[in-house]
Amino acid sequence: MAQTTFEEISASDFFYRNRDIAGFTNPSRAIFAAIRELVENSLDAAESLKIPPDIYVRLSYEGEASKETQIYRLRVEDNGIGVPPRHIPSAFGQVLYGSKYKLKQQRGTFGLGGKMALLYGQITTHQPATIISSTGITKIYMYKLMIDIQRNRPLILDRKILLNKEQWRGTIVEFTLEGDYFRAMPKILDYFKQTAMVNPYANLTFVDPKGRLYKLTRITKEMPEPPKETKPHPYGVDVELLQRLIQITPHKNMLDFLKNHFHRVGEVTAQKFLEFSNISPSKNPKKLTHEEIVRLMHMLKKFKDFLAPDASCLSPLGEELLKAGIIKELKPEFVAVHQRKPATYAGHPFIVEVGIAYGGEIPKKDGFLIYRFANRIPLLYDEASDVSVKVIEAMNWRRYKVTPDMPIAIMVHICSTKVPYKTVGKEFIADRPEVRREIANGLREVARQIQRFLTRREHVDREKKRLGVFSKYLPKIAQFSAKLAGKEKLPDIDKLLRSVKRFGAEET
Amino acid sequence: MAQTTFEEISASDFFYRNRDIAGFTNPSRAIFAAIRELVENSLDAAESLKIPPDIYVRLSYEGEASKETQIYRLRVEDNGIGVPPRHIPSAFGQVLYGSKYKLKQQRGTFGLGGKMALLYGQITTHQPATIISSTGITKIYMYKLMIDIQRNRPLILDRKILLNKEQWRGTIVEFTLEGDYFRAMPKILDYFKQTAMVNPYANLTFVDPKGRLYKLTRITKEMPEPPKETKPHPYGVDVELLQRLIQITPHKNMLDFLKNHFHRVGEVTAQKFLEFSNISPSKNPKKLTHEEIVRLMHMLKKFKDFLAPDASCLSPLGEELLKAGIIKELKPEFVAVHQRKPATYAGHPFIVEVGIAYGGEIPKKDGFLIYRFANRIPLLYDEASDVSVKVIEAMNWRRYKVTPDMPIAIMVHICSTKVPYKTVGKEFIADRPEVRREIANGLREVARQIQRFLTRREHVDREKKRLGVFSKYLPKIAQFSAKLAGKEKLPDIDKLLRSVKRFGAEET
Repeated sequence: MAQTTFEEISASDFFYRNRDIAGFTNPSRAIFAAIRELVENSLDAAESLKIPPDIYVRLSYEGEASKETQIYRLRVEDNGIGVPPRHIPSAFGQVLYGSKYKLKQQRGTFGLGGKMALLYGQITTHQPATIISSTGITKIYMYKLMIDIQRNRPLILDRKILLNKEQWRGTIVEFTLEGDYFRAMPKILDYFKQTAMVNPYANLTFVDPKGRLYKLTRITKEMPEPPKETKPHPYGVDVELLQRLIQITPHKNMLDFLKNHFHRVGEVTAQKFLEFSNISPSKNPKKLTHEEIVRLMHMLKKFKDFLAPDASCLSPLGEELLKAGIIKELKPEFVAVHQRKPATYAGHPFIVEVGIAYGGEIPKKDGFLIYRFANRIPLLYDEASDVSVKVIEAMNWRRYKVTPDMPIAIMVHICSTKVPYKTVGKEFIADRPEVRREIANGLREVARQIQRFLTRREHVDREKKRLGVFSKYLPKIAQFSAKLAGKEKLPDIDKLLRSVKRFGAEET
Repeated sequence: MAQTTFEEISASDFFYRNRDIAGFTNPSRAIFAAIRELVENSLDAAESLKIPPDIYVRLSYEGEASKETQIYRLRVEDNGIGVPPRHIPSAFGQVLYGSKYKLKQQRGTFGLGGKMALLYGQITTHQPATIISSTGITKIYMYKLMIDIQRNRPLILDRKILLNKEQWRGTIVEFTLEGDYFRAMPKILDYFKQTAMVNPYANLTFVDPKGRLYKLTRITKEMPEPPKETKPHPYGVDVELLQRLIQITPHKNMLDFLKNHFHRVGEVTAQKFLEFSNISPSKNPKKLTHEEIVRLMHMLKKFKDFLAPDASCLSPLGEELLKAGIIKELKPEFVAVHQRKPATYAGHPFIVEVGIAYGGEIPKKDGFLIYRFANRIPLLYDEASDVSVKVIEAMNWRRYKVTPDMPIAIMVHICSTKVPYKTVGKEFIADRPEVRREIANGLREVARQIQRFLTRREHVDREKKRLGVFSKYLPKIAQFSAKLAGKEKLPDIDKLLRSVKRFGAEET
């Protein structure tokens, strides 16, 4: 008889076995994923200090790996916050260890990407990675390490301490990996270009394996406020979260518990809620039974008077910047942008920003040009499965006079303390109903604006035609009538033409 | 100055925080995912014993959860191999613990789905799950358990041992979860229907919350051979895998090492390879340096004379069954199927089977109807990102006289010891170049067949038209000529008509 054997594997081993789910699917995507994961960590590391990021990326050719793939050395250098020395080995050599497990708007969310890049480098080239970092103190720490995949622990091969005379602060990651740069190149360059578009305060430098230099220089030093960590909003909690809060709370009654652990719940709201749900304000949260916790969760979702989440913990692009980005990139004839009010899904506040543009340098093709961003990072793969694309496809565009053959570009940015990515590789966003609704409402708003533009343009076109007819025949009629009447002077046609104009001259 | 804090989270906590990546995105998909994960575990559990599966699924209404969601109780019962009692708590209450981490064709691959279903039930309803199982021995074990998410350990709330008088063997899982059945219903029913189509030896029973019974009865008791565990193929190894094999090998020289740990490497092949790569057959594998291991990996990929992987560890549908399934489902006018020879990606053997069908009950729509299967499970979500769909879209169908407005259905089945899913929720398959190539070659083969069919049909149509013209005028001409010639008897037109026919009567 067959016998089933059971075993436990480490988190590192899980992602080693299933690298596809982290975006390391093939040699071309792997090199793209490695670069973006490290660049995003660097952007986060600089922004958390409100320092304009200076990021230098170099990919250099090391040798041939197979007929279609090469070995590259990747170096990513930033001026970010730096990693405290005692955390360096685990932060780079242990999966599910990191600083990203917070309710805070940041690019990284899984605490996984950087390690996956090193892990992929290790399994394809079996070389250690070098990490150099300083938090700006008197010393710089250098580690050479590999990952013990089966135990999910860093293996430290070498460690050096250098004097930091120049008070350098930042992190350098360098390692080798197998990849196919030339196939990945268009996506990588797109990635840098779009990243610069939504991070106008960053300097990005990329040196490719042929030694070509791509330099994207900041256009402003003005930085958004660093995103703040936030508390969960009561509309989105689940039983597990309630239990965790009850476990750690120092508060001895429900009133204080609610006031201190939830986003936008103050004294008055907490009292109202407790009355609504018939829970005594003096009840000790640690004494709640399972059934009472489940009921508390349902009541939190049912109560109508919680304030909407506060956007201060989020850092959206803003309508101005979004518009400027679109104009810079596409030089369109018309653009409309809209920022939605903050909303929540599963306790996480989020803001949707959308833009629509028409004409100019937007190519005419069958369907719209779509740009997707999440927490200021461009999403470039697996477009078809993204919630934004689904909403765009489901919309009745004809209602807004928009047809698929028009030169139209649509841009959707979602920022959140937790973007609901569908894959660990952050390629596309899951179809959460709350997110879908916000995108749809945002798109309807800009669609109405483009409709007004298109309607106006249609009128103007019709008017132009009408005036064209008039201006073609009126001079002849004037001449003819003048002759008939035996007059020398022709009537003033311009005045006549002006009188039939229905739109201002600046519009025709 | 900002201070970064670091923390470690458990694998269970990771999936709790990121349930989107495991398919539990919204209340509708969650209920679909829970059912399919448990059904697939049950199918695997019966097949590993070569027992025709009998699976009973009941979803019953327990109460309202919110405006749009309800609480359901899900029970899935099978006649599979059963879980040994000491493994029950971890197999259901600990993420990354299981029996699925093998090189073996099975539906489950992540060892995660069943636990995610229970975890989702727990965080939405906070009730324990009940697991009842017996391997057919004298006792039946019943556990009530929950998951300690922060520590990733099962919490046993109750345990009972019952006498197994009837020698029952199988597993029953029962728990409550929040969901939206009515939105998920069409996908769930499709799922059962398509599962029955590719598992014709299974009995599937589903009782829905309204008490409606869906019964899909087996049409055969003939079972494929249970999939066997296999060794890695030399073309697909990476450095990590080589190191693991070196670590566990009892063999003291390279010749024995290669012969014993790799798929389809015998004495002769091993000798040839060692000569090709200039490695001494008597070298102790444990003495290989890092550089030598990396070199060994590259040489293994370069050597041309390894035998292709043996399909005996795979259990494809077979062309007959695939054809029968398509005919049963779509009653088409024409069908062509093709099974590719086994191939490998990253050391994993796989077989692609494709089918194409025309006409009959296939609806005419813009684009093809696409059915996707992997290891005998239907894939129903996120079609647009699937490698099969990408290949289908990239093909030049006009070359094969196929246009998007034709009533065409395409079916792709991939079976492998490791299907390269892109998401933990097994919604779609990653774009691995080796897999893409096999699908494309398979599709070209059936495309040529449908081209022959369409060409023939075109000829036949043209011929029909030509004969139509003849048969319309020939009688008149015959009458007229007979009159002119003064003859009573008309010439034999039928004979004439037969003589201009270019195709057999059975084809017109």
